[in-house]
Amino acid sequence: AKRRQLSVDELEIGIRSGDRTLLARAITLVESNAPAHQALAQELLDRLMPETGKSLRVGITGVPGAGKSTMIDTLGAMLCEKGFKVAVLAVDPSSSVTKGSILGDKTRMEKLLGHKSAFVRPSPTGGCLGGVARKTRETLLLCEAFGFDVILLETVGVGQSEVTVRSMVDFFLLVMISGAGDELQGIKKGVIELADAIVVNKADGDNVRKARMAKAEYNRVLSFLHPCTEGWKTKAYMASALTKEGIPELWEKIQLFKETVQANGVFEKRRQTQNLDWMHELLNEALRQRFLANTVMHGRLQDLSAAVARGEVPPVKAVEDLIEHWVRLDR
Amino acid sequence: AKRRQLSVDELEIGIRSGDRTLLARAITLVESNAPAHQALAQELLDRLMPETGKSLRVGITGVPGAGKSTMIDTLGAMLCEKGFKVAVLAVDPSSSVTKGSILGDKTRMEKLLGHKSAFVRPSPTGGCLGGVARKTRETLLLCEAFGFDVILLETVGVGQSEVTVRSMVDFFLLVMISGAGDELQGIKKGVIELADAIVVNKADGDNVRKARMAKAEYNRVLSFLHPCTEGWKTKAYMASALTKEGIPELWEKIQLFKETVQANGVFEKRRQTQNLDWMHELLNEALRQRFLANTVMHGRLQDLSAAVARGEVPPVKAVEDLIEHWVRLDR
Repeated sequence: AKRRQLSVDELEIGIRSGDRTLLARAITLVESNAPAHQALAQELLDRLMPETGKSLRVGITGVPGAGKSTMIDTLGAMLCEKGFKVAVLAVDPSSSVTKGSILGDKTRMEKLLGHKSAFVRPSPTGGCLGGVARKTRETLLLCEAFGFDVILLETVGVGQSEVTVRSMVDFFLLVMISGAGDELQGIKKGVIELADAIVVNKADGDNVRKARMAKAEYNRVLSFLHPCTEGWKTKAYMASALTKEGIPELWEKIQLFKETVQANGVFEKRRQTQNLDWMHELLNEALRQRFLANTVMHGRLQDLSAAVARGEVPPVKAVEDLIEHWVRLDR
Repeated sequence: AKRRQLSVDELEIGIRSGDRTLLARAITLVESNAPAHQALAQELLDRLMPETGKSLRVGITGVPGAGKSTMIDTLGAMLCEKGFKVAVLAVDPSSSVTKGSILGDKTRMEKLLGHKSAFVRPSPTGGCLGGVARKTRETLLLCEAFGFDVILLETVGVGQSEVTVRSMVDFFLLVMISGAGDELQGIKKGVIELADAIVVNKADGDNVRKARMAKAEYNRVLSFLHPCTEGWKTKAYMASALTKEGIPELWEKIQLFKETVQANGVFEKRRQTQNLDWMHELLNEALRQRFLANTVMHGRLQDLSAAVARGEVPPVKAVEDLIEHWVRLDR
């Protein structure tokens, strides 16, 4: 039987009273592409805004095979044991194709799933990165209103997803492994400069020596690059998600980061900038969509694009032509 | 006496027949912010489009004191001696303030200025980077139509100007010096990953040993980063713009780059993408300007921006509000 659509009142009360079933229902609403659901979701978010913003938002990325999921499992479980409420979300624009490559295999989060104060939500299947990002941002707000203290945001690193996750979080962690030789195998252009910390995972057993060398190597590279966050020096650390060694120290660093950026004002400034950037991005996209919704303009843009790509029409002239026609059509 | 405004016909014929005075007049037209001049400039560019795209476009940036100007002087003069026609342009969004910090001091380009086949144009004083970028792109097209074989595009690296220059050129050169210690002093976040080559300048006299060490260091860092151009490995080289040592070898590398990317199709693909990206950027900006030109919407955006920055209104809701109001006003 199809479930009855809950009202915004019911969902708001549910989230404010800590009802996980209703949180999950609210997230489903946020993830829906149906305009009616969207309207309800926006109304709900609007009401819950005063309760948001209170968690620490931590982004986590890494090369395939670095053990991101195990790292999240170990770190998240440790935080639960310390009394924190922890939510784990994911940004994976590919998951509609690969059918949930991320957080799909919940066996990798066994420790975390055993805790009552943990909440794990797989990546929404939204198609494009923009859609997935919107849904994840709004889910993050719902989780904050619900009362989670720490939100771990995982990304597989498809397309521009690291940049997107960076634009949602306070702290960004890059999980690496040793033995990748002289190359940053699998790590994309510019990702190192998005990180507030690099952790060399799997630093256990015979691997410790290699991990130590990798750590030194990353620290050397980092000394040539600019840290992502003003007033904070991005460094490399070692840890083992398996043995838990180095995980408490990593958390201490994240705590130190939080204190530092809260004291120098960078924390608050970044959050404001993130909100504004998101709004401007949405506005630009909406203005563009309104333009493209006009089939005449859409066709004209396609024709001119081809001519511009071939170097036949100067871009400025093409845009003048488009705007001129649109103003005329719009009257 | 005020000079008579030349017609598009006169300017077109002048550029096609190699008249430098008329090239300079056409560039002045492109640089003008007056709408009447802009209309003439766009008409001229439109007519000259078939003659554009035939030069090699080389971007050059570097830390202050690395000797960019001397490097351009030496490289440019050598190319003139080889029989190439060389134009030097600049992107410096700060020059309206600093009154021409770049290419202003022409004494640094003495060798180049002695060549008849060289053309040096200071950065337009356009205020914002967007304005300077538009003028430089269009000047570049005029220079290509005029018949320059190589266009050297210098940037001082203010704001996002390296990214802007990268979006205009085929090859991007980063000029560095040794002795900057363990830090990339003065070089901005992400700039290394825009480069197709790093040249350690001032590798002469007592400095050669230090330059060799710096070269090795940069090559080490580069091995951890992604090259900017598909199919090409970004590497560090040594040269001395003073003694000319290493400059012919640097030019050989640039030639090899050109052959490589022309053979694998990356050259043509990048040019197309650059044209299209520019057009879309202009279109987005034009749509945004049209929206902001409405004083009601402009005020509403400012109010909502403040609320969004404070975390009081969800960005999606703010944008829905804006678009809804605009559609109503527009009718």
